[in-house]
Amino acid sequence: MKNFTYQAGTKIIFGKNQVNNLIDEVLCFSDRILITYGKGSVIKSGLLDKVKTALNEKGAFYKELSGILPNPRLSSVKEGIKICRENDLGFILALGGGSVIDASKAMAAGVLYEGDPWDFYLRKAAPDKALPLGCALTLAATGSEMNGSTVVSNDETQEKLATGNDCLRPKVSMLDPTYTFTVNKWQSAAGTVDIMSHIFEQYFTPDPGTDIQDGIAESILKTCIKYGPVVLQDPENYEARANLMWASSLALNGLTGTGKMMGDWATHMIEHEVSAIYDLTHGAGLAILFPYWMQFVLNDKTAFKFARLGKNVFGIEGSDDLEIAKATIDAIRSFFNSLDMPSSLSQVDISDEHFKVMGEKACKFGPIGYFKRLNHEMVTQILKMAK
Amino acid sequence: MKNFTYQAGTKIIFGKNQVNNLIDEVLCFSDRILITYGKGSVIKSGLLDKVKTALNEKGAFYKELSGILPNPRLSSVKEGIKICRENDLGFILALGGGSVIDASKAMAAGVLYEGDPWDFYLRKAAPDKALPLGCALTLAATGSEMNGSTVVSNDETQEKLATGNDCLRPKVSMLDPTYTFTVNKWQSAAGTVDIMSHIFEQYFTPDPGTDIQDGIAESILKTCIKYGPVVLQDPENYEARANLMWASSLALNGLTGTGKMMGDWATHMIEHEVSAIYDLTHGAGLAILFPYWMQFVLNDKTAFKFARLGKNVFGIEGSDDLEIAKATIDAIRSFFNSLDMPSSLSQVDISDEHFKVMGEKACKFGPIGYFKRLNHEMVTQILKMAK
Repeated sequence: MKNFTYQAGTKIIFGKNQVNNLIDEVLCFSDRILITYGKGSVIKSGLLDKVKTALNEKGAFYKELSGILPNPRLSSVKEGIKICRENDLGFILALGGGSVIDASKAMAAGVLYEGDPWDFYLRKAAPDKALPLGCALTLAATGSEMNGSTVVSNDETQEKLATGNDCLRPKVSMLDPTYTFTVNKWQSAAGTVDIMSHIFEQYFTPDPGTDIQDGIAESILKTCIKYGPVVLQDPENYEARANLMWASSLALNGLTGTGKMMGDWATHMIEHEVSAIYDLTHGAGLAILFPYWMQFVLNDKTAFKFARLGKNVFGIEGSDDLEIAKATIDAIRSFFNSLDMPSSLSQVDISDEHFKVMGEKACKFGPIGYFKRLNHEMVTQILKMAK
Repeated sequence: MKNFTYQAGTKIIFGKNQVNNLIDEVLCFSDRILITYGKGSVIKSGLLDKVKTALNEKGAFYKELSGILPNPRLSSVKEGIKICRENDLGFILALGGGSVIDASKAMAAGVLYEGDPWDFYLRKAAPDKALPLGCALTLAATGSEMNGSTVVSNDETQEKLATGNDCLRPKVSMLDPTYTFTVNKWQSAAGTVDIMSHIFEQYFTPDPGTDIQDGIAESILKTCIKYGPVVLQDPENYEARANLMWASSLALNGLTGTGKMMGDWATHMIEHEVSAIYDLTHGAGLAILFPYWMQFVLNDKTAFKFARLGKNVFGIEGSDDLEIAKATIDAIRSFFNSLDMPSSLSQVDISDEHFKVMGEKACKFGPIGYFKRLNHEMVTQILKMAK
């Protein structure tokens, strides 16, 4: 087990009827707030109204920024920064899923930075100062509600990049599973795949002796496999939505990655290149790519970890690690298929036109991946396998 | 899943050679520090010297309080409070295991309270203000390094009581597994039992739909079952010590209790009555009492949870929950025995002399337990079974 520092200080307020508790926490930081959201599902669900009512009752000042899209755009980030500066706002409250939260993190750091916020993503500047932010989560998927990471797309350059800093971790996050009842089948399935992918990225590493982390990772995967199908059939099943929601936060708050040198993250970086061009739902892209990444990196050295996963999560028996590993990858692909997720890029109308440039862009900062290092040709090969 | 609030904000600094990083964090809070420790193992291991050297290098002022015993005494707490007040100290740094940390928490709150610190434990006052505190952990057991709970013994009244508050959560905890290499077999085994007991107290509740929490709980138990025996045979096995150390923190930082009304905690309260009189090692007391508590509360209604545990942790198969439950309790007792822990009170020279008064004292605030409510007669009965 490697040395590590771990502090996941986000205050989680979980459950029904918690808006007033959320606002009480927000007001500990500032009474001048930017509320950010997306296309209006938070209007339909009544969440925005409840938040505004609570803020009005406490005499707080707020501005709104709506229209933040999935794969959030740098243009929205710049708009949010402008509103914060013009109105001297001191807290950003994101209502939505990972896209709204990620864009809000970029705003929070961008307000205190004089240059272009894209600099953070190009690694030209560190987002090491930020306004405090919080969220009311409406989609169980990205884990952004309990970590300091942010992924944003540059609409001009067709790039989708990630950055992060501990100061971007939300101070408080409200997780009310009832606000995910209206999430449709496609997004629910993609969210489940996203949660599982975050576990995979931290599970598949060569570090020895991380038994407790890997055990926790497996238990989160089992939760996804149990409840993912339930919410597709029974979208208002509170227990299922609640388990998936808490799974989303625990899968990417740093817990399962403790004691490891780093995560792998190659598949995420490849998927970002695909969805930067095609605006594909992130989880759907991961459902396509992950099994092919697994096939590509499977060898005598890596089989042990796939075999562990297969035995502990899918109950696959056997004595040959490589055989169990292959059966495990099949089981993962079958599970994603059972959620009606696509299993090839052609199924979502993506041709091989940009595969070469996607491979190059994925490796723009050098080879990617930690479980197995991948150069741009290998990335292109994985994309071809996934065609 | 019940509504919950969760914030485990302790900064964990895990691994080898981290003393300077610990001291850097401490000095963010205050440069006037009380160092607390026990009988001197931190002198032998060199930890105390390293801490003092780091403090001296940074020009910090410190005082020391040594001699804090297992089942820490109120008298030590009062001494610590006096030193803090006389020297205007602003941070308490505990070097040791749960006893030193728990006593230090009582000091931290006591410094800012005008009355007797025992009031906190008698529920006459809430320990809701405290000096910041931190620790360098030397024993994997109580989980005190990442939570706001404290257990102290009153030397005058032979009472051992618990209290807690979020403000008592250490700001920073250094977990260096190498400092547990010298922990002897008895204490190592008792520590493993203690960690498992914390999981049991939160696992055995009647709350439905807490699948993710229970899965994480099971993975922590499996870690204990795997590595507990290893450290008895091979005390300097870093991976085993590291997994147990991280298990101790995760078992009682609130994580596995989220979404539940509360934990059970009856067995801990019974054990506190035994060790208040007999000064028994806490984990050894739990190893004796837990299997009897399990036998006592097992019935048609509670069998499902024992059966889940048996299937998922001990791989016990079958179709009848009650049968699996019985086999599970046997497996737990066998595991504790394999660690050379006692399995009856007579084995540690405790007679039935005080059983009745122990039962009454355990229920002094009313019936105990949540999985099954126990009155004082039931507690006495469990003690008789454990004789």
